[in-house]
Amino acid sequence: MKKRLFTPGPTPVPEHVMLKMAEPIIHHRNPEFNEVLTRVNQNLKYLFQTEQPVLTLTSSGTGGVESTFVSLFSPGDTIISVNGGKFGERWVKLPKAYGLKVVEIKVEWGKAPTAQQILEALRAHPETKGVYLTHSETSTGTATDVKALSKLIRENANALVCVDGITAVGAHELRFDEWGLDVCVTGSQKGLMIPPGLAFVALSKRAIAAMETSTLPKFYFDLRKALKSYEKNDTPWTPAVSLVVGVDSALEMLRAEGIENIWRRHERLATAVRSGVVALGLKLFSEFPSYAVTPVWLPEGMDWKVFNKTLKSKYGITIAGGQDDYAGKIFRISHLGYYDELDMVTMVAALEMTLKECGYKFELGAGVQAVLKSFAQ
Amino acid sequence: MKKRLFTPGPTPVPEHVMLKMAEPIIHHRNPEFNEVLTRVNQNLKYLFQTEQPVLTLTSSGTGGVESTFVSLFSPGDTIISVNGGKFGERWVKLPKAYGLKVVEIKVEWGKAPTAQQILEALRAHPETKGVYLTHSETSTGTATDVKALSKLIRENANALVCVDGITAVGAHELRFDEWGLDVCVTGSQKGLMIPPGLAFVALSKRAIAAMETSTLPKFYFDLRKALKSYEKNDTPWTPAVSLVVGVDSALEMLRAEGIENIWRRHERLATAVRSGVVALGLKLFSEFPSYAVTPVWLPEGMDWKVFNKTLKSKYGITIAGGQDDYAGKIFRISHLGYYDELDMVTMVAALEMTLKECGYKFELGAGVQAVLKSFAQ
Repeated sequence: MKKRLFTPGPTPVPEHVMLKMAEPIIHHRNPEFNEVLTRVNQNLKYLFQTEQPVLTLTSSGTGGVESTFVSLFSPGDTIISVNGGKFGERWVKLPKAYGLKVVEIKVEWGKAPTAQQILEALRAHPETKGVYLTHSETSTGTATDVKALSKLIRENANALVCVDGITAVGAHELRFDEWGLDVCVTGSQKGLMIPPGLAFVALSKRAIAAMETSTLPKFYFDLRKALKSYEKNDTPWTPAVSLVVGVDSALEMLRAEGIENIWRRHERLATAVRSGVVALGLKLFSEFPSYAVTPVWLPEGMDWKVFNKTLKSKYGITIAGGQDDYAGKIFRISHLGYYDELDMVTMVAALEMTLKECGYKFELGAGVQAVLKSFAQ
Repeated sequence: MKKRLFTPGPTPVPEHVMLKMAEPIIHHRNPEFNEVLTRVNQNLKYLFQTEQPVLTLTSSGTGGVESTFVSLFSPGDTIISVNGGKFGERWVKLPKAYGLKVVEIKVEWGKAPTAQQILEALRAHPETKGVYLTHSETSTGTATDVKALSKLIRENANALVCVDGITAVGAHELRFDEWGLDVCVTGSQKGLMIPPGLAFVALSKRAIAAMETSTLPKFYFDLRKALKSYEKNDTPWTPAVSLVVGVDSALEMLRAEGIENIWRRHERLATAVRSGVVALGLKLFSEFPSYAVTPVWLPEGMDWKVFNKTLKSKYGITIAGGQDDYAGKIFRISHLGYYDELDMVTMVAALEMTLKECGYKFELGAGVQAVLKSFAQ
C-alpha cells in the first residue's frame, strides 16, 4: 500500500534528499564536510532571518532547548515559561530539573498566551532572566504571537526572549533579528524536512553574553563549546554527518522557494485544510490555529482507534492523535514541511472516506470541494 | 575518483543499509517503529553480550558517556578516570564539569593502564564510586585489558566498572555480563557501521540501582527516563528514526556473521595491517594495539600534509592523522566495521604508492605481500 505521513514530525523527507543522505559517508574532520557545514551555517541564517550564529547540535529538539537553559542561566535564576500543551509543559519541567525558579503561565490547551498574562508575570517577577514561548505548540496546534510578545517583553523587562520554534520554523513567519529574539530552537524533522536527530539554536548577542556568566553544569550541551567550533564551521563532538548532509540539501530547496513563499504556502495549506474539515461539519480544536498542524475534534461518539485504524490500514495515512486529556478526542493533521496543495486534497479525501466508513453523516466530497475553493481564492 | 574511508568513525556504511535508511520515514510513536526498536533492543543485547538493557540515545558517543556520569553519580562523588589519549582526557574534563571529584590516572599515549595503577588509585581512594576505562582509545589506537581490570576492580572495590566502548564494541571481545561490567557505551558510527547520531548505553543491575540515588541535575540525558521508555520499546524524546532503522539492518548483519567471528575478523585485519606496515620498515605507535585502528609513525622527515594530500587526492583514501602532540607525527588506519581482507590489501597498496611518491625508500610490494602472508597463516 502507498503510505503517506501527515504527522507534525517526523515530516516526509523529499526523495532526492533521502538519496543524498544515502551517498557514501564522509568524515567530519575533513574539508568535504567543512564545505557542507559552511553552507549549512550560512543558509540557516536565512531560515531564521538572522545575522547571528545558528548552532547545529546532534540531539532531538528537546536537547536543543535544554542546551539553552543550561548554557544561559544559573541555579536560582527566574524564568517565565508558558505551558499551553505537552511541549510548554516540558519547558517547565526541564528548567526545574536544573534548579531554576520557574514562573509557569498556564494556558488552556488550544488557547494562546495573552499579552496581559506575560505582563503580569513580568511585573510580579522583575528578576526574570528569560521568558520561554512556544511559537507553535504541536500538541494543540496553537500558534503564539511571538512578534508581539517579544516586543512586549523587550519593552517591559530585561529578560531574554526564548522561543521554542520547533514546529514553527519554516511554517510561520519568523524574523529573529527584526523581532528582537534572543533564542530560537528548531529540529531537523519539522519544517526542515529531514529525519530527526539534529537541533538548531539561534543566539542573539545578548544570549551569547549571558553564556559567559552562566554557572549551570554542562558539557555536551555547552553552547560556548558549540559556538567556538561554529566559528570554524566545525562541531565540538562528532555530528550526525548524514543528517547534516540532508539539511544542506533541504536548505537549498528552501532558498530556491524563498522563505516568504514557504510561510505563505503553509498558511495556504493550513487554511484550506481548516475550511475542508469545517465543511464536513467538524469542529476545529484551536482558537489560534498554527500553520504547521491542524487539530480537529473527533465527531461525537466516534472511536479514535477505529477511525485511526481505518485511515491507516485502508488509506495508508498516518496522522497524530490527541495527547493527555485529549487522547481519543481530537486528531491532528500535519501540513508542515514537504507538502503542496494536492497533498491537502489527498488528505481531506482520505479523511472523508474514513469518516464515511465510520458512520459519520455528511455529504461526501464537501471537504475536498472546500479545499479547492480555498485554494482558488 | 573512487573514494574509500579508513577512519575510526564515521566508518563506511554498507550500501544496503544506506538504502534502507533512505526509505520513506516512519513516525516514532507508531507500531512500525515500535517493531524496529523492539528488534534493535534485542539485538543490542547480543552485541554487548548481556541480558541487561542497552539504551539507545540520540547524541554522539560523548553524549552517551555524559548520560552515565549525570545519571549514576552525585556532586562530590569520587570517580577514577584513565587518561591515555584524547578520549580518556575528555572523561576527566566531563565529570569535573559536573562537580565530581576525579582521580586521574595519566597514561602515556600508546600505553595501556596497568593493574598496578588502578589498584593504587583504588587504595588511595577507597571512596571511589566508579572507574572509567577506555576499551580502545581512538587517538592512540591502544587497547585496555577491560576483562582483567574489571575483575581487579570488582575484587578490590565497590566501584562501578564503566567502559567507554565507543571504538571497541564490535571489534574487541566484550562480554558485558560475564566480565561484570556496569556501564558500557558505544556510538553508531563505529563497529555498528551506521552514520553518527546514536549512542548506546548498557547498564548492569548495580548501575540501575545507582541511578536511584544520583542527584546530579539532568533531563535529556536522564537514563531513568530512557530506561522507563525502553521497557515499552520506546524513547522519551524523538529518536533519530532513520539511524535506528539503519542500526536494525546493521545488527541483522552482525547476527548473521556472529559476534565471535566479527571479533576474530577485526583481529585478523588488524594483525595483517600491522605486519604490512612493519614490512615497509615503518614503526607502530602503540604498545598494546587496538583491533579497531592502527596508528603508525610517519617516516622520519616526511611531511604529513604532503603524505595525506597524496593519499587523498591521488588514491581517494581518507585516513586519520595524529592529535595533539602527535599531530603531523603519526597517521591512523582504521579497520573498524565494514571491512574485509581485500580492503586491507587496498589500503596497504595505496599506502605503499603514496610513500613511494613521497620519496620514502623501500621495496614496493613488500607491504601487500606481508598482508597476504598474514592472512595465509
